[in-house]
Amino acid sequence: LDISDLKRKSLLNYKPYTYGEQPDPNEKWIKLNTNENAYQPPQIVLDEIKAAVNEKLRLYPDPTCLELRKLLLSKYFVQYNEMIKLDNLIVANGSDEVIDILFKAFIDSGDIVVFFNPSYGMYPVVADLYGAKSQIIELTDRFEIPEGIDQVKGKMMIICSPNNPSGMSVPNSIIESICKKFPGLVVVDEAYEDFSSTTAISLISKYKNLAVMRTFSKGFCLASERIGILVANSQIVQFMMDVKLPYNVSYLSQVSANASLKHIEIFKEMHKEIIAERAKVTNGMRKLKLEVLPSDANFILVKLPSAEIAMKFFTECKVNKILIRQYNKKELLPYLRISIGKPEENVILLKVFQETAKKVMK
Amino acid sequence: LDISDLKRKSLLNYKPYTYGEQPDPNEKWIKLNTNENAYQPPQIVLDEIKAAVNEKLRLYPDPTCLELRKLLLSKYFVQYNEMIKLDNLIVANGSDEVIDILFKAFIDSGDIVVFFNPSYGMYPVVADLYGAKSQIIELTDRFEIPEGIDQVKGKMMIICSPNNPSGMSVPNSIIESICKKFPGLVVVDEAYEDFSSTTAISLISKYKNLAVMRTFSKGFCLASERIGILVANSQIVQFMMDVKLPYNVSYLSQVSANASLKHIEIFKEMHKEIIAERAKVTNGMRKLKLEVLPSDANFILVKLPSAEIAMKFFTECKVNKILIRQYNKKELLPYLRISIGKPEENVILLKVFQETAKKVMK
Repeated sequence: LDISDLKRKSLLNYKPYTYGEQPDPNEKWIKLNTNENAYQPPQIVLDEIKAAVNEKLRLYPDPTCLELRKLLLSKYFVQYNEMIKLDNLIVANGSDEVIDILFKAFIDSGDIVVFFNPSYGMYPVVADLYGAKSQIIELTDRFEIPEGIDQVKGKMMIICSPNNPSGMSVPNSIIESICKKFPGLVVVDEAYEDFSSTTAISLISKYKNLAVMRTFSKGFCLASERIGILVANSQIVQFMMDVKLPYNVSYLSQVSANASLKHIEIFKEMHKEIIAERAKVTNGMRKLKLEVLPSDANFILVKLPSAEIAMKFFTECKVNKILIRQYNKKELLPYLRISIGKPEENVILLKVFQETAKKVMK
Repeated sequence: LDISDLKRKSLLNYKPYTYGEQPDPNEKWIKLNTNENAYQPPQIVLDEIKAAVNEKLRLYPDPTCLELRKLLLSKYFVQYNEMIKLDNLIVANGSDEVIDILFKAFIDSGDIVVFFNPSYGMYPVVADLYGAKSQIIELTDRFEIPEGIDQVKGKMMIICSPNNPSGMSVPNSIIESICKKFPGLVVVDEAYEDFSSTTAISLISKYKNLAVMRTFSKGFCLASERIGILVANSQIVQFMMDVKLPYNVSYLSQVSANASLKHIEIFKEMHKEIIAERAKVTNGMRKLKLEVLPSDANFILVKLPSAEIAMKFFTECKVNKILIRQYNKKELLPYLRISIGKPEENVILLKVFQETAKKVMK
């Protein structure tokens, strides 16, 4: 018996997801490569989580995340209370599991799933795992969705907005035109929406094939606790509830998200600060004659004159204990993606960029 | 567009998993229906978890659970250190996700997956979700694996040992005879092993198609935190690592499991107490002329003279704020499954059984 023979035949050409580099936590790095929130959760949130570390740990967590969904309605989606109810919400073990559950509920082997390039790397990975046919649509040179998108057919389309890695939002006019014509589910992944002024949420009541994803990993400083949310028509949510693993979100993860929502006003201030820092870093880069895409996220995408120069900036940052993201995909070689850090981190970053620019740009 | 039309065609006959009843946590119930550990985690473990609620919450958790796997080797699998190494271990979001990942790595649509009835209800549910053909083998009247099992073919076989709901372990001699002949993966789900004296772990080095599952939900009082483990040949583990969601185990879940393993000696004492209580409850039931299956788990399966009488005991318990588990499957109608509670809870349970027996049995 050869164990390799037991592996799924349909996975013979499968390529696993590649993580962003995680440095040794005992070394002091400025970590701007995986778009985590620069700030730790507020002390009051940490205190409330600590207070919940008690005898309940022995019990199974709530399979429906009821308290969290109630808080989402009363604190996070307040302005949409007319259209979003409890049965329009499902919670999962991070956005990654939301995507997994979407495939489990809606994608049979051979179904066509549409997404864009470049975008979040998990979409094609999950598509392969569920035997879907990936139809990948190339974004324009300006990272925009190309003309004619409303002619595309498929069972599901995933739109990341603000997109990773460009940081640019997709206008609701484009999402509307897709929802009207697309014969399947239209999923808008709004992982970075807390740093943006655009959202497709208001379209949910108008288009029953629309689903919107959110996460606590970026806006709520909770990447560790894996909280992903999906908002959609109650029928979509019910199908997903039926197929998800029963106890998919741990008790302390639910507690962490609940505590965060109770103090959402602190996070709103934090988002304003991050947006202000994003403007500072963007301006600093532009002063160096670097092109920066207009970002709606907690990161920016910077275009260097060449792949070679991009690599020099990346290396120079690493020498200075700053980790940023570079890419191996051909079309992204001259680009660097940089998460927005704390003010003092951003100052150091800009200084390293300044000095490197002097050295390597004519 | 009708949303029902978007649902997977292959799920038309799918039936979701049915949870054990979760009572209102604000009401005072003796909860003996879902096999959680009767005891809360030791205070020192709770304190260590609290101490870890800090700035790390903003960061992604370790995708490989490295510290947890190291502790599993040094604290939990000490006696197997010659045969189990780091690359023989994978951690997931509860045993349910271990099962999900097994299917993702090894089961193509149409592959045959073998399991037993009655057993844990998630196996057929996940099989349906992955389009597997479920081959269900009925256990004997004594809940034993029937003769001729080593003739059965398939891509994967899942054996729950100690089995849920019988509480009975499968002898290693039977597991060995299956491993020798079965042309696929043999998965032994040892969720309740901490209360047993049998394990298939020692067979791992001998049979490369064998995988053994463990969980922190029962023995380590951590059902809330969803920690499932699989031990197998490194090739099996590598295939599973390649297909699992990148950040599948939250930071605080990893911290909880780590803290538990650091104080494993406290849990070993606790297991002895639960086993002693199991003997007391079993004896108490037998004094009432009730048949109790010999249990290796933290629950017992009690046979009542009829389905009707079983229902009366169940109802009488509920009236007295004790929740136990009854079944709708025909072959299990006269049975009740009862988790072992704390000593004082078990006294109340036995009293209610005594009084009910007086009323309803001849």
